[in-house]
Amino acid sequence: MELIDKLNWRYAAKAMNGEKIEQEKVDNIIEAISLAPTSSGLQPFEVLVITNQEIKEKIKPIAWNQSVVTDCSHLLVFAAWDTYTEERINKMFDLTNEKRGFTNEGWENYRKQLLATYPNRSAEENFNHAAKQAYIAFSQAIAAAAFEGVDSTPMEGFDPNALDEILGLREKGLRSCVILPLGYRDSEKDWLVNLKKVRKSKEDLVTVLD
Amino acid sequence: MELIDKLNWRYAAKAMNGEKIEQEKVDNIIEAISLAPTSSGLQPFEVLVITNQEIKEKIKPIAWNQSVVTDCSHLLVFAAWDTYTEERINKMFDLTNEKRGFTNEGWENYRKQLLATYPNRSAEENFNHAAKQAYIAFSQAIAAAAFEGVDSTPMEGFDPNALDEILGLREKGLRSCVILPLGYRDSEKDWLVNLKKVRKSKEDLVTVLD
Repeated sequence: MELIDKLNWRYAAKAMNGEKIEQEKVDNIIEAISLAPTSSGLQPFEVLVITNQEIKEKIKPIAWNQSVVTDCSHLLVFAAWDTYTEERINKMFDLTNEKRGFTNEGWENYRKQLLATYPNRSAEENFNHAAKQAYIAFSQAIAAAAFEGVDSTPMEGFDPNALDEILGLREKGLRSCVILPLGYRDSEKDWLVNLKKVRKSKEDLVTVLD
Repeated sequence: MELIDKLNWRYAAKAMNGEKIEQEKVDNIIEAISLAPTSSGLQPFEVLVITNQEIKEKIKPIAWNQSVVTDCSHLLVFAAWDTYTEERINKMFDLTNEKRGFTNEGWENYRKQLLATYPNRSAEENFNHAAKQAYIAFSQAIAAAAFEGVDSTPMEGFDPNALDEILGLREKGLRSCVILPLGYRDSEKDWLVNLKKVRKSKEDLVTVLD
């Protein structure tokens, strides 16, 4: 199917050519992020979309000096909530009631259940959980970019504390967890572009219980 | 674009009708999982594809008795590596060399770097990292299912220790982290199907730094 073709076309670009991505494509990638499912619908993360070259230059040295950080068109930073709070949980439940135009007993009981558990867990456990939700959105962004013919570089190789400092994330109750340069491949400079995509065998990946 | 339309069509099905999914669609969803990017290409997870009704019945009570667990067509269980070991890392690097037909100094140095760090971290830290990679694949599975017109229910609501026990995962060095019933919605029984999809505003989701 078409999506599989696009996912086969995709690879982690190691060099980009600086070309700008059309706004419509960026908007679609953001929309895919927004539509990604998250646990209890909390969407416990924010996304920074960086086109400012000075900020990209500041980030490059704390991201293993990878050239895609500065040669990309848009640098996406996924920043998860540092913890779950009553305020954050209530905000999403209230928004849901507002958008749907009614309240529901089951839904309100579910809210109470989350309020009774999440805020009492350690911040680290909550951040870890929130980060996983950010990864779901990150993955939808990668798929949407591929679908648009936009290259991307999924990157964990950066110093998250340094990035939080550069972007002032901690003050906002956020912590960076993964970044995604978006742009167009520079095939002449990219050592990976012509190498075969390697995946473990389906036998090693999948066990069918029928 | 077409992918966005499909992601808008998608929702977390709360009731399924038991109808079987065509094998070709299942194969495409598995292919999307296989093609998902993972940190250093390690693919540190396995996927169990459960169609056996007895096993589904055993899982249902440890998954909040959600009907989709038994009324789905295929129940996917994403099980991440319990830790990173030398053997697991070497296996993927060796496979890459074998598939690409050559070895490369930079790549071998990178292998050494991982071997010098990952196995020394705590199993919990490693499992957390591996689980995030499983979430990337989980998300691609959700997108691929939507693209195929297949419903899915992203689920963290289960007892992972009990599921590991039922499926014998710990003995294989695996730990369940998230599950995905796949099937077809039962619109008459599903309380969620006609409710509005709620997402936070783009202003609350995205910050542009230009």
